[in-house]
Amino acid sequence: MSEPMARTTSTHPGGLAEIPVRRFPRPALSRLGLSPGKRTRLKRLLYDHGPGGGTLLVLPIDQGLEHGPVDFFANPESLDPQYQYDLAREGRFSAIALHIGLAEKYYPEFAGDVPLILKLNGKTGIPSDAQAFSPLTGTVEDAVRLGADAVGYTVYVGSPAQDRDFLQFLGVRRDAERLGMPVVVWAYPRGEAVAKKGGKESLYAVDYAARVALELGADVVKVNYPVASEKDKESPPPYNTLGLSPSDAFRKVVESAGRALVLVSGGEKVEDADLLHKVRLSMDAGATGIIFGRNLWQRPKAEALRLTRELHAIFREYAQPPA
Amino acid sequence: MSEPMARTTSTHPGGLAEIPVRRFPRPALSRLGLSPGKRTRLKRLLYDHGPGGGTLLVLPIDQGLEHGPVDFFANPESLDPQYQYDLAREGRFSAIALHIGLAEKYYPEFAGDVPLILKLNGKTGIPSDAQAFSPLTGTVEDAVRLGADAVGYTVYVGSPAQDRDFLQFLGVRRDAERLGMPVVVWAYPRGEAVAKKGGKESLYAVDYAARVALELGADVVKVNYPVASEKDKESPPPYNTLGLSPSDAFRKVVESAGRALVLVSGGEKVEDADLLHKVRLSMDAGATGIIFGRNLWQRPKAEALRLTRELHAIFREYAQPPA
Amino acid sequence: MSEPMARTTSTHPGGLAEIPVRRFPRPALSRLGLSPGKRTRLKRLLYDHGPGGGTLLVLPIDQGLEHGPVDFFANPESLDPQYQYDLAREGRFSAIALHIGLAEKYYPEFAGDVPLILKLNGKTGIPSDAQAFSPLTGTVEDAVRLGADAVGYTVYVGSPAQDRDFLQFLGVRRDAERLGMPVVVWAYPRGEAVAKKGGKESLYAVDYAARVALELGADVVKVNYPVASEKDKESPPPYNTLGLSPSDAFRKVVESAGRALVLVSGGEKVEDADLLHKVRLSMDAGATGIIFGRNLWQRPKAEALRLTRELHAIFREYAQPPA
Amino acid sequence: MSEPMARTTSTHPGGLAEIPVRRFPRPALSRLGLSPGKRTRLKRLLYDHGPGGGTLLVLPIDQGLEHGPVDFFANPESLDPQYQYDLAREGRFSAIALHIGLAEKYYPEFAGDVPLILKLNGKTGIPSDAQAFSPLTGTVEDAVRLGADAVGYTVYVGSPAQDRDFLQFLGVRRDAERLGMPVVVWAYPRGEAVAKKGGKESLYAVDYAARVALELGADVVKVNYPVASEKDKESPPPYNTLGLSPSDAFRKVVESAGRALVLVSGGEKVEDADLLHKVRLSMDAGATGIIFGRNLWQRPKAEALRLTRELHAIFREYAQPPA
Amino acid sequence: MSEPMARTTSTHPGGLAEIPVRRFPRPALSRLGLSPGKRTRLKRLLYDHGPGGGTLLVLPIDQGLEHGPVDFFANPESLDPQYQYDLAREGRFSAIALHIGLAEKYYPEFAGDVPLILKLNGKTGIPSDAQAFSPLTGTVEDAVRLGADAVGYTVYVGSPAQDRDFLQFLGVRRDAERLGMPVVVWAYPRGEAVAKKGGKESLYAVDYAARVALELGADVVKVNYPVASEKDKESPPPYNTLGLSPSDAFRKVVESAGRALVLVSGGEKVEDADLLHKVRLSMDAGATGIIFGRNLWQRPKAEALRLTRELHAIFREYAQPPA
Repeated sequence: MSEPMARTTSTHPGGLAEIPVRRFPRPALSRLGLSPGKRTRLKRLLYDHGPGGGTLLVLPIDQGLEHGPVDFFANPESLDPQYQYDLAREGRFSAIALHIGLAEKYYPEFAGDVPLILKLNGKTGIPSDAQAFSPLTGTVEDAVRLGADAVGYTVYVGSPAQDRDFLQFLGVRRDAERLGMPVVVWAYPRGEAVAKKGGKESLYAVDYAARVALELGADVVKVNYPVASEKDKESPPPYNTLGLSPSDAFRKVVESAGRALVLVSGGEKVEDADLLHKVRLSMDAGATGIIFGRNLWQRPKAEALRLTRELHAIFREYAQPPA
Repeated sequence: MSEPMARTTSTHPGGLAEIPVRRFPRPALSRLGLSPGKRTRLKRLLYDHGPGGGTLLVLPIDQGLEHGPVDFFANPESLDPQYQYDLAREGRFSAIALHIGLAEKYYPEFAGDVPLILKLNGKTGIPSDAQAFSPLTGTVEDAVRLGADAVGYTVYVGSPAQDRDFLQFLGVRRDAERLGMPVVVWAYPRGEAVAKKGGKESLYAVDYAARVALELGADVVKVNYPVASEKDKESPPPYNTLGLSPSDAFRKVVESAGRALVLVSGGEKVEDADLLHKVRLSMDAGATGIIFGRNLWQRPKAEALRLTRELHAIFREYAQPPA
Repeated sequence: MSEPMARTTSTHPGGLAEIPVRRFPRPALSRLGLSPGKRTRLKRLLYDHGPGGGTLLVLPIDQGLEHGPVDFFANPESLDPQYQYDLAREGRFSAIALHIGLAEKYYPEFAGDVPLILKLNGKTGIPSDAQAFSPLTGTVEDAVRLGADAVGYTVYVGSPAQDRDFLQFLGVRRDAERLGMPVVVWAYPRGEAVAKKGGKESLYAVDYAARVALELGADVVKVNYPVASEKDKESPPPYNTLGLSPSDAFRKVVESAGRALVLVSGGEKVEDADLLHKVRLSMDAGATGIIFGRNLWQRPKAEALRLTRELHAIFREYAQPPA
Repeated sequence: MSEPMARTTSTHPGGLAEIPVRRFPRPALSRLGLSPGKRTRLKRLLYDHGPGGGTLLVLPIDQGLEHGPVDFFANPESLDPQYQYDLAREGRFSAIALHIGLAEKYYPEFAGDVPLILKLNGKTGIPSDAQAFSPLTGTVEDAVRLGADAVGYTVYVGSPAQDRDFLQFLGVRRDAERLGMPVVVWAYPRGEAVAKKGGKESLYAVDYAARVALELGADVVKVNYPVASEKDKESPPPYNTLGLSPSDAFRKVVESAGRALVLVSGGEKVEDADLLHKVRLSMDAGATGIIFGRNLWQRPKAEALRLTRELHAIFREYAQPPA
Repeated sequence: MSEPMARTTSTHPGGLAEIPVRRFPRPALSRLGLSPGKRTRLKRLLYDHGPGGGTLLVLPIDQGLEHGPVDFFANPESLDPQYQYDLAREGRFSAIALHIGLAEKYYPEFAGDVPLILKLNGKTGIPSDAQAFSPLTGTVEDAVRLGADAVGYTVYVGSPAQDRDFLQFLGVRRDAERLGMPVVVWAYPRGEAVAKKGGKESLYAVDYAARVALELGADVVKVNYPVASEKDKESPPPYNTLGLSPSDAFRKVVESAGRALVLVSGGEKVEDADLLHKVRLSMDAGATGIIFGRNLWQRPKAEALRLTRELHAIFREYAQPPA
């Protein structure tokens, strides 16, 4: 692993003793092989909006498609997409990420206030995930037309449907190249074979997914934080015996992502202290930012904004000038 | 749920005591993110034809394809599509909805009298619905060429064939965007997985379908009225224990549809009193209108026109100026 | 059912007593919603060639593809396509219907003498019909290039492959619209689900197929004469208990076809008297004509021409001026 | 000339004695060879908006391009295009006719209230008219996208640039056919050769221009009222000796336009009495309506609305049911 | 002319007495009929970069193509395009405007720091301007690919080559519409006919040019400040006798531009005091900003930055919140 940039101390909110932490640098924007258009747009997200300083704080709202309205019961206000748009603007997020329908119908009055990441594929959670594949719901040209600053695409790494998935992504990646649009890949391990090799949350699977995104041409990769479990024994060697600490495991994933910037998923709602700790661990490991949805909008706006301010405060610690 | 606009009283036609009802507002046309062309055409349906006042009364006649001529036995006259065209014109419907063949062969003499919603996909009811998918029967350009004011598309939410369905819809949605044509999505839960989670009429399924239509870019969404049953226990939480009243359940669906206007399906023929009661409940909950076929044309024209007049009378109560 | 135009008497050639028959009118050419090009070409078939008077007498020769050369053993001359071309010219048929190969290689010397219906899709009879689907063998532009006056397309109604079939037909229908070419749909019920609901010859299946052709945009629909059987009990209600006479059943099919003109298939070779009786029944019920192959060319030319003259004589009785 | 439909009397507003007038019928919509889309859109202009009854009252605002802002000095309010839009809505015009820039920037808030005729070509009045040619400023697809109900195109009949003009119009006409969009041709004689044969206002030139529009495929033709002058002697025979009355001359032009509906231009501002007299003469001669700009918006709105009401009153006299 | 928003006092830097000035409002962004993409990008220029507050301070560097390197002798550093890029970044301009070559080769290291307006057409100053026409040097897709926030296009209003010019612009305008890219039109009167009607700096010519840009679909129009002269007598009435003050003349131009935002050209280098005075007059008249090249980069950077700071100070006085 590469040398950390600095050593500081970090206190676990649960009251654990201070432990020295290593901070790993994020890849410099100038070394990512970006065309001028991709660089212009990505820099806007990293420096002109949100916490800035080269970090990303993204609010996703694609759960209505992926999970159905079930996720909005925790905070009934959140059923109206305007809630998330308001939160993104008032909370000064780097961007909001969503599908074409929520962009066409709600974005116009926020145009220019909140950067847009147009999610280009998705699926419902109703049929089984055994052959997971997310068909296109929008195009890179839609994203350009709407003034978006990036596109999002889910690759189901390891799915039996990966043939169609890679080919579909090829089209997106080429359009994005032609139009100077950064590509954020939701790199999700899925499918029967993944389940047999430690599961979709195993380091083996997450690490592999991060690398696949890099190899296919992602500019930014969104990953889940790997979770160690008994099932890791079913992963191929040496993953089955690595036994890395959570932060070392995540650092491993960041390294596998290489020059693709790393975003950490929030997943289901957890305790605030745990959430903030996870953010620090991720940033220490070289992540560029987070993409947290339910953990933010599944609560009243005042509370969500309070937490967002805490996130801004953390990100400020990790601010770096453009390079 | 959002605050109702007004409280009035409503009498169930079956003679039940008056109960106070809440009326929820419909989304304002100016806030739907519509391009000028979509807005022009949708406004025509909402204000220049039919009951007007921002409501929709649509007559569908695609059952000959979906179910076969079996639906026409109840009223033999209805086998001739001219019957439905005459009914739509004499009954001053907002629009008639049908496939390309019935448009090409019967619309010319009604051109300009009855607005046209060209249904763009469909299937026969002969094979199983396990992998439900409706292939295209027409295109957005056909609709433009014929002078239609909207297009209709069926999405089978939850079907294992959703990959092809979403991709096919993507093409329709983009053509509609390019040509300024409003898109009405028939959002129908279908398939094996839906059957296992409460069934296609459950609130879980209908609510999810409404949200999917919004996320994919529908301007108007046609849903079935959810029906509570024992099978709701098989729906994912919290749907399995919600126990909402019919009107609260439908209000929930309208909220999930967000800025997509909601049309209620009629389904099979029922008692007039029940039908009119359902219309009032739907409109109170914020629906924009109804799309009733069999309940209207499965009866002699004089009788159908009488019922249509009653529908006009109800819609007049819900009229609102353009906003 | 609509009122018959006139009552006359008809004598069954087998010697049965005279029975009064009802004659139903055919749809007027001017009311079929045809573009000028479609109307020009269709009028040529209906009035300038064949028996005229708004009738159609079509000679098909696509059995070599659909069944193989097996059908030509009954009359070895018929193996040479020139036989059917000669028969069509000498017998003054309204048109000959065949695939691109037989058009390219044999039509040139008959160009202008015998109108051409280019059949655009087909398949061999070798694999099972469970997933019946006929891929394209030619295009509408081929038909234009060859000077054809119509195109033919087989839709397998109810087949599990209906997705591909409808989409393929969409392309044909749109090209035909653009180029002013009438479309004749071979509307054939097929597949496992059809077999379970009364079979491909049941009224349920034939009636449904006729309506599907109308909804998809056929200008002319070719149907098989429905055959009552014990299996009708497996059809959905009310078809399982209708018990219509053959002529009433066929009249039902003609009504379901609406403004698509109806052609009756000949099918396997039968007794001449039965064949002619079937023709009269069909024409009485409002059919526009017949498309008989094996019943004509599976016999020596002189005999075929004799039968053709009888058919001309019958058609003259049903002649109507253009309207 | 064809027989007039009726004889009534008309009083010249200037006080002349009553003279019996002949009224010539307008072509019936059903006989114009219109596709369903063209018919739907044209019927909307003729019956659903404006004075209705099959007449057209169109407000053009393309003078800012054609003449420059010079035309707006007479009424400074008119410099703001919103003035004309407001006038069109409040005065219930059949349509407003203008170029893409005024449509994109001002139409959205009037979408659905005022029908739009998108003018597709134009030029500045700065260079000489010797080689008059108006290049495209928009496309038929722009018109569809914006929800327009017709497109307008200027043909400079007789211009040395007619080669490019006809070819450019060919593309417009074909797109309009494909998309069901009615085409209004501004048929203007222009160029050196026209000047030598009696000039652009001569009956010879106007009559020829009307016929050219018909031959090229116009659905509606906008002509200037021919003006007799000494220069008529330079027109080819027999125009040089016809000596028709103004109303007979205009009737001649309407007959030359055949099944293209005729709109009369207003031209420069004149006395109201003369204007209204010209309207009556035009309608008596079989014109379908008028397209008056400067005569209406070169005055304060109250005054313009007063005159508009007078025009509505006149048009009501000429109302006919759809046929 | 419309009513001014406010009256304040302004002091001519040359020491003239204070005179009350009228301030006219700029069009609100929300009323410009902009698609979400155009609005997002234009808002970025108006509010996120440069002086902000809805103003524009643009640095053009297309003189090397238009005039040749001759313009760079005044400040030899300016020959290197990096000079202007540095000036744009250090001086916090709203955008830099230039051709594809200077974008491809110099923009990458400024990507995201300085917004880019890609100029899409241009010409050399070597041949005569009699038939002035600027051919394309880049495309809207180039602009998207590079991450530009607007495109620029020169229309030579009144040129005999306006046919080609309008047609070329049509393609640019449509691509810009499709991709959500704002269009800045350099509206320049040119050509023999212009020269005969008062010349390219006359109010007649500038006023006409502004209106043409609006009608053709410009989102922003760049005009020269009109200059009164003896030649105005050759302009068409009433321009030949208007005798407006400079500020009233410019206000007239702003009104003719309607809902196209107005940028004022700098032209040749003048005294700073005159320059700043012109800026104030322009902004008072409702201009949105300025596009000054030679007046800024024809001097050493320190001096250019000092002047830029003065411009920022002025623009701050005219700042308005988004509306």
